[in-house]
Amino acid sequence: MDNEQALHSVDRLLHDVVDSDVDVLRDASRHILEAGGKRVRPRLTLLAYEAVGGKDINEVLPIAAAVELVHTATLVHDDINDHGSMRRGRPTVNARWGRTFALLTGDFLFTKVYQLMAPFKDLNIIFAEMTMALVEGETLQAAAAKSGQLDRETYARIIAKKTASLFAGAAKMGAILGGGTPEQVSALEQYGFNTGLAFQIVDDILDLIADSQQLGKTAGLDMAQGKGFATMMAGAHGSKPTTATAVVNVDAADPLAAFKQKMMSGNYIQEGREQANQLATLAQFSLNALPASEASAELFNLAQQIIDRDH
Amino acid sequence: MDNEQALHSVDRLLHDVVDSDVDVLRDASRHILEAGGKRVRPRLTLLAYEAVGGKDINEVLPIAAAVELVHTATLVHDDINDHGSMRRGRPTVNARWGRTFALLTGDFLFTKVYQLMAPFKDLNIIFAEMTMALVEGETLQAAAAKSGQLDRETYARIIAKKTASLFAGAAKMGAILGGGTPEQVSALEQYGFNTGLAFQIVDDILDLIADSQQLGKTAGLDMAQGKGFATMMAGAHGSKPTTATAVVNVDAADPLAAFKQKMMSGNYIQEGREQANQLATLAQFSLNALPASEASAELFNLAQQIIDRDH
Repeated sequence: MDNEQALHSVDRLLHDVVDSDVDVLRDASRHILEAGGKRVRPRLTLLAYEAVGGKDINEVLPIAAAVELVHTATLVHDDINDHGSMRRGRPTVNARWGRTFALLTGDFLFTKVYQLMAPFKDLNIIFAEMTMALVEGETLQAAAAKSGQLDRETYARIIAKKTASLFAGAAKMGAILGGGTPEQVSALEQYGFNTGLAFQIVDDILDLIADSQQLGKTAGLDMAQGKGFATMMAGAHGSKPTTATAVVNVDAADPLAAFKQKMMSGNYIQEGREQANQLATLAQFSLNALPASEASAELFNLAQQIIDRDH
Repeated sequence: MDNEQALHSVDRLLHDVVDSDVDVLRDASRHILEAGGKRVRPRLTLLAYEAVGGKDINEVLPIAAAVELVHTATLVHDDINDHGSMRRGRPTVNARWGRTFALLTGDFLFTKVYQLMAPFKDLNIIFAEMTMALVEGETLQAAAAKSGQLDRETYARIIAKKTASLFAGAAKMGAILGGGTPEQVSALEQYGFNTGLAFQIVDDILDLIADSQQLGKTAGLDMAQGKGFATMMAGAHGSKPTTATAVVNVDAADPLAAFKQKMMSGNYIQEGREQANQLATLAQFSLNALPASEASAELFNLAQQIIDRDH
């Protein structure tokens, strides 16, 4: 089974596992799961498994599916909090089924994660920790949005917890189940963490650009302008922020919109891109701990794709 | 360690496990957990463990705590959906911290359940199934409230899934970990299921009475009036409803309030009480599969307390 086939198997498993005789849970779960998405996280798990020499890809499918499910559960809940109306080109669960069912659908997906992970005793501990970090990261983000302030250290904590922890865990679990040595497991965890940080930085940049295009405010935006975005992110891979007290103060009426405007006006985007590039390079460097293989080459390319993508 | 001490240990574990460097998650979790509550579910787990001869109560504490946590997580989410303002004599998390943080606090508690349960491989499967049933039951209830219709079969499905599954699982896991024979495990699971049904029926009756007292509409309410509540519940322990199509149609403007009014006007409450009494008797009967012990006697009494309680 090649990687694409394995991803299809993950999709089938996701389809099957959310079956329920409670129609709305089944329908809403499939609505969001089958809207597509990049499936970066399950790919990480599958590739990490293969990269350390794992032989039976079927054994790792439930973990890859669980990783995608926990991510999806938080998306469904995020869309309640953010009042998001579209997700992956479809109406959000919240927009289509209302808040109560969106909340319960997210909870349902969390319980399905339990079910998928139940047979994997030791991996459950890793899974629990990364899920906890994910929820903590979301909470820090909500607290920052509410306060209208976001300093670099907080931004770094947020993206480390809400995104990089899940990427790291996804790769680590695949590597453990595939029988990797401690050094290989650690290298793949590091790879996941750094690609996760890079992924989120790029996501935030794309979000800024997309928003501005929608708003029609920033046509002809030059990528090489302003500064500060990357500076804010300086703590992201462990270096100290150059000015610990640097804070972006934003309009309380719509903190995120105002914050984004501020971002667009500086050199933030170019520096963010550079930061993401460095993280991807670091991630690729970690792969030296692995034997040469097709999976390892795919991981190398994946890090590049994460920073090159335009959506 | 006697049972009260063990429950205190569960409380301490709950306090400790929700610690987080994200202040709002820690504070909101402790706010709801430390408001008290009857702790019926963790008691079930502890007593089931002891009733089958379990020797080291410490090993079952994480499961008892996880059972209480998953219950608490759903309470926090329920209070978002129901706009509840008070819970256990305190403001709800939703009322005090707002919807976003209430949603994330519920998610956080779900992740802590994972963490507590991670070491218990086989029990995780039971835990996942009962949690899934719980969320399905909540969803069926929300769907019924939305449609403004609730027939007996649906009511029975709802209380079986949302309450009895958790009671059954709580007792079953305690019994398995305590080394019970398959017959004992099954008896305690049945005990939990039937006390769970009885508990929920009594809860619904108390809710009707409490509401009416608050509203001042039903002073001097006679318990022996009307009929239909118990009939609606007839499917609850497996018997067929006498009229499969019996449906209580309620006012769409406030379906639950109208539904409750309808309940109050019939013989529902007395029949509900009788149903709960039968279920408690069935539960007590299951205990015959166990050797005589203090824990078994406490379980016998617990079934009685569940139907006798007035709050």
